Amino acid sequence: MRTVDTDQEIQDMARGAVLLGTGGGGDPYVGELFLRAQLKKGKKATIVDSSEVDDDAFVISIAGIGAPPVLIEHLVSDKLLLKILARAEAFYGRRVDYLISCEIGGANSMFPLALSAISGVPVIDADGIGRAVPHIEMTTFSILGVKATPCILMDDTGNVVTLEATDDRTAEELCRAAAGALGACVFGALYPMTGRQMKDCAVHGTLDQTLQIGRRIRKARESADDIFADLLAYLNVDGRFATILFDGKIVDVTHETRDGWHWGRATLNGLGDSTDEFTVDIQNEFTVARLNGRTVTVVPDLISILDRESGEPLTGEMLSYGQRVKVLGYSADALLRRPESLEVLGPRQFGIDEDYVSIEDLHRTARASAA
Amino acid sequence: MRTVDTDQEIQDMARGAVLLGTGGGGDPYVGELFLRAQLKKGKKATIVDSSEVDDDAFVISIAGIGAPPVLIEHLVSDKLLLKILARAEAFYGRRVDYLISCEIGGANSMFPLALSAISGVPVIDADGIGRAVPHIEMTTFSILGVKATPCILMDDTGNVVTLEATDDRTAEELCRAAAGALGACVFGALYPMTGRQMKDCAVHGTLDQTLQIGRRIRKARESADDIFADLLAYLNVDGRFATILFDGKIVDVTHETRDGWHWGRATLNGLGDSTDEFTVDIQNEFTVARLNGRTVTVVPDLISILDRESGEPLTGEMLSYGQRVKVLGYSADALLRRPESLEVLGPRQFGIDEDYVSIEDLHRTARASAA
Repeated sequence: MRTVDTDQEIQDMARGAVLLGTGGGGDPYVGELFLRAQLKKGKKATIVDSSEVDDDAFVISIAGIGAPPVLIEHLVSDKLLLKILARAEAFYGRRVDYLISCEIGGANSMFPLALSAISGVPVIDADGIGRAVPHIEMTTFSILGVKATPCILMDDTGNVVTLEATDDRTAEELCRAAAGALGACVFGALYPMTGRQMKDCAVHGTLDQTLQIGRRIRKARESADDIFADLLAYLNVDGRFATILFDGKIVDVTHETRDGWHWGRATLNGLGDSTDEFTVDIQNEFTVARLNGRTVTVVPDLISILDRESGEPLTGEMLSYGQRVKVLGYSADALLRRPESLEVLGPRQFGIDEDYVSIEDLHRTARASAA
Repeated sequence: MRTVDTDQEIQDMARGAVLLGTGGGGDPYVGELFLRAQLKKGKKATIVDSSEVDDDAFVISIAGIGAPPVLIEHLVSDKLLLKILARAEAFYGRRVDYLISCEIGGANSMFPLALSAISGVPVIDADGIGRAVPHIEMTTFSILGVKATPCILMDDTGNVVTLEATDDRTAEELCRAAAGALGACVFGALYPMTGRQMKDCAVHGTLDQTLQIGRRIRKARESADDIFADLLAYLNVDGRFATILFDGKIVDVTHETRDGWHWGRATLNGLGDSTDEFTVDIQNEFTVARLNGRTVTVVPDLISILDRESGEPLTGEMLSYGQRVKVLGYSADALLRRPESLEVLGPRQFGIDEDYVSIEDLHRTARASAA
């Protein structure tokens, strides 16, 4: 058990969460500000490792649900967070022992920490996907058997919705619909589970990962080290693989909001006299990266775009013409590469007419053909 | 206390409910079939007068919520109706003493009777509007202070949604959203209230009114009496006013589904060598009737269109080119004409840029100018 003790840690975690958000997941900035304000009052979020949690402990997720731009404007409050905890305990009929993020990428990395700081309930160093995904039923919790419902949703004016859905695809539809009816954003307590289920279905160590990623970027920046070399050194461990897919400038970026999704494409050219063209497709998150038309990384593997000077990770909404960036590819956690996960998280689920090939295999093939 | 004993009574009530539906409210046919099937098994719906209900009795509404065309296809089942009663009793923590229709016009006249037949819980001879309205917050229950929520919604596959809304406009948004997410139709238990509240906020005697209207039309038809003379004789009592606004044929009818509403306009010409033009605007229900451009009846007063030979009341969806019809105007219940009701139910709430003038006053002015 440890606490989040400094502003710098909070900022580092938020930066890491944007990287793992792979362009989506909402901006963690609101949660970051809230946590920093709590820290000023001496209130610290507590984090525990998955292994410290008893098998019969009661764990729930706390999440903001709705359109990310609204999440940003919709300031989180002590009152609402404490109310959702109290209502969740009444609803589930149990004291909540631990909180967990359902999605470490983006805004939902911060809300469990925010509630932890004001309630004292610890947050588990794990989450339900290890990145960001656009739908509830795409978490490893859902895929591996922890249901998102029964769940409870609330807004800041006193509206309360509880859901029991037959499946998590329906839960997703109902949550979206409720968020829309209540002005595009609600807070939810969902994924009630035991400690045992959490151990089996979560992606572990991801909260620490946000801190390590954010810290490495900051420290390399401060010391004028090579940010990307440091970052790759950290990410290329424990069987994971990370590489810089492209180094260039954005020459075109399209944005469109349609069917409740943020769609778009960023097109990059190489620097200097390179004639390479690189594209990144956006469907809330970055879904597929292609070099001269050849896929180099595809969901559920992670694609992140970072400012090439500062190493700051960028969301899809932040991309604009003329930015000089590096594109990072990063292998998804092994849980996401299981056949049952790829059925839900694979390229075809995002309308990409390709079979999933791992970033490692794509990288190997590219090197072989270049040789 | 009385029971609904014959197929004929059920059919009469359904016919009367279509008339009070003023073109909307959904077709009561599915509920009618269900009730008739129960009657065959010896199961009868029970009806009590409002005055028989104790002030501290617990009363709830049972309603189908969603797009009327889907309500028609979505067959109601014993299992679902009994489950919603059981879940409602658990949710409210009380035995349900009485059921009440929130809207007597159309499909929702039948569902409380259907549940009564299989559960034995009596239905109160009253409802929350005395006609059909497109929104939850437009009932006299909502207007006069009985909140629609806390409520519980269910579909036939096992999805359950509970709502606590800050106001009934938000309840409406949430119910619509949930119905949409669950395939356009849910069943709900809503408007928990005491017997006292029911007495103060309901429009009384409306279930009996459906029976009387339907019976008069049928009997006049069978005996070759003048259907409309008989109907007007029944409706013009107790300070209410009814008149035939127009007699003619439909020469044009437009239908459009937009923003979750069924919009349209029926245009009628007079018979023989009449040059009169009559229009009825549709916004789920019939909202305003005009003779040669002059308003003759407007919401919340009732406009019903009936086949001129059989007297069969028609819904907006049933209107088609060439039909010969009579248009009936009928004063709304006094509760609907209170200032607080007109604020919610008046013409401007339906986008009609006119102040409300009662059908009686419009009729008097028209006669004076004709004289």
